Amino acid sequence: MLNKSEAKYIQSLSQKKFRLQAGCYVIEGPKLVGEALEAENLPIEKIYATRDWISSQPSGMRNLTITEVSETELERISQLKTPHQVLAVLNLPQQDILPTEGSLTLVLDGVQDPGNLGTIIRMADWFGLRQIVCSQDTADAWASKVVQASMGSIFRVSVHYTKLSTWLAAQELPVYGAALQGRPLGSFEPVREGILIIGNESKGIRENLLPLLSERITIERFGQAESLNAAVATAIVLYRLTGAAT
Amino acid sequence: MLNKSEAKYIQSLSQKKFRLQAGCYVIEGPKLVGEALEAENLPIEKIYATRDWISSQPSGMRNLTITEVSETELERISQLKTPHQVLAVLNLPQQDILPTEGSLTLVLDGVQDPGNLGTIIRMADWFGLRQIVCSQDTADAWASKVVQASMGSIFRVSVHYTKLSTWLAAQELPVYGAALQGRPLGSFEPVREGILIIGNESKGIRENLLPLLSERITIERFGQAESLNAAVATAIVLYRLTGAAT
Repeated sequence: MLNKSEAKYIQSLSQKKFRLQAGCYVIEGPKLVGEALEAENLPIEKIYATRDWISSQPSGMRNLTITEVSETELERISQLKTPHQVLAVLNLPQQDILPTEGSLTLVLDGVQDPGNLGTIIRMADWFGLRQIVCSQDTADAWASKVVQASMGSIFRVSVHYTKLSTWLAAQELPVYGAALQGRPLGSFEPVREGILIIGNESKGIRENLLPLLSERITIERFGQAESLNAAVATAIVLYRLTGAAT
Repeated sequence: MLNKSEAKYIQSLSQKKFRLQAGCYVIEGPKLVGEALEAENLPIEKIYATRDWISSQPSGMRNLTITEVSETELERISQLKTPHQVLAVLNLPQQDILPTEGSLTLVLDGVQDPGNLGTIIRMADWFGLRQIVCSQDTADAWASKVVQASMGSIFRVSVHYTKLSTWLAAQELPVYGAALQGRPLGSFEPVREGILIIGNESKGIRENLLPLLSERITIERFGQAESLNAAVATAIVLYRLTGAAT
């Protein structure tokens, strides 16, 4: 059974300000919650699940607070169109930005669309990136749509928000930016350590960051589309720069 | 002014069966409608626009039926959350599948998400592909979400629906499929002519098509994500196979 104030609290976590206040976020569905249960050092605050989900769990489960809820109760607290068996409240990660030396770091400057951000977190994980550093106006990584689109990669890639101009100015590695009128991507060699900036869906990288770029990278175009989707552009550049192709 | 039956007709075009029945689909917003007006041989049935949009148009506009509508009327017929100045009803293209010889043809086997499909149409246009051949259960290319996500590329890339097993069996070019446990993408040379199949978001390429593949292509992975978003995977493979990188 779910009491009213608890339901209200979980619903409030759909908003960024309440997530920050509570230090918690929500994940949903057996697949994602299953991944969270398997991940090490992932603090799970509480689980709300239907009887079906609870009875499907192995008996040796780690010590967790599980509240059994009905389908109707789950619907009330869910942020999905089609709630699915289980919802978990997790603690927001508390971690400083890692040093950038020795790896490729992805930087997002104002990526707005939650689906794009989730997809980018997922591909960063695929390509073995450890962290993503975002401008403060980038979509929030712990919003439901982002978390769900990241397909569990949010547990493995660490995402940070900071004032990019200050942070970038303190970095010593080369800074690459996906932008128009740059050098063709195919002419770049894989990058062992460096920083790659992807800009906003329609405006690209902000003016004030452009002087900080060591190189502009442009994806080759053969056809007539004006641009590529931001997640798609990120994928193509990461494929090349991580050296997957070589 | 918009009469009731006309509004009802436009609203009905949000459903595939009514689009097929009427042979028409809807596009929205000044950017997309602007692109449609600039495209050659694109039959525009009718335009519904606010006074603002109409007065912003050059006087030498091609011969079109324009109905002035209020913001409220536009809201009623729009499929967008935030309707924007103008909506146009266009005729569905009537075109047979082009011969595949001499180019790379993209085939989609059950891509379900409208956003993914729109993004794929947009990147196909970017990479200069002329057509996409889809299984009958792939999302409909003239649904509002697809059309809007394609950003005008739907006017330039021709999209077809057919029974893939039959159509593919009649093709003589090599057939590449994005699949697990294939040859690493980086080992492929650009493909001047051929067919590339991308499968469903969660199930991949259907069993019955697998024997028709000449080669399986696998995107190299360095990290732990189980898979990539379908549009992202398509982008990476197209980048390599179209030879953009070389």
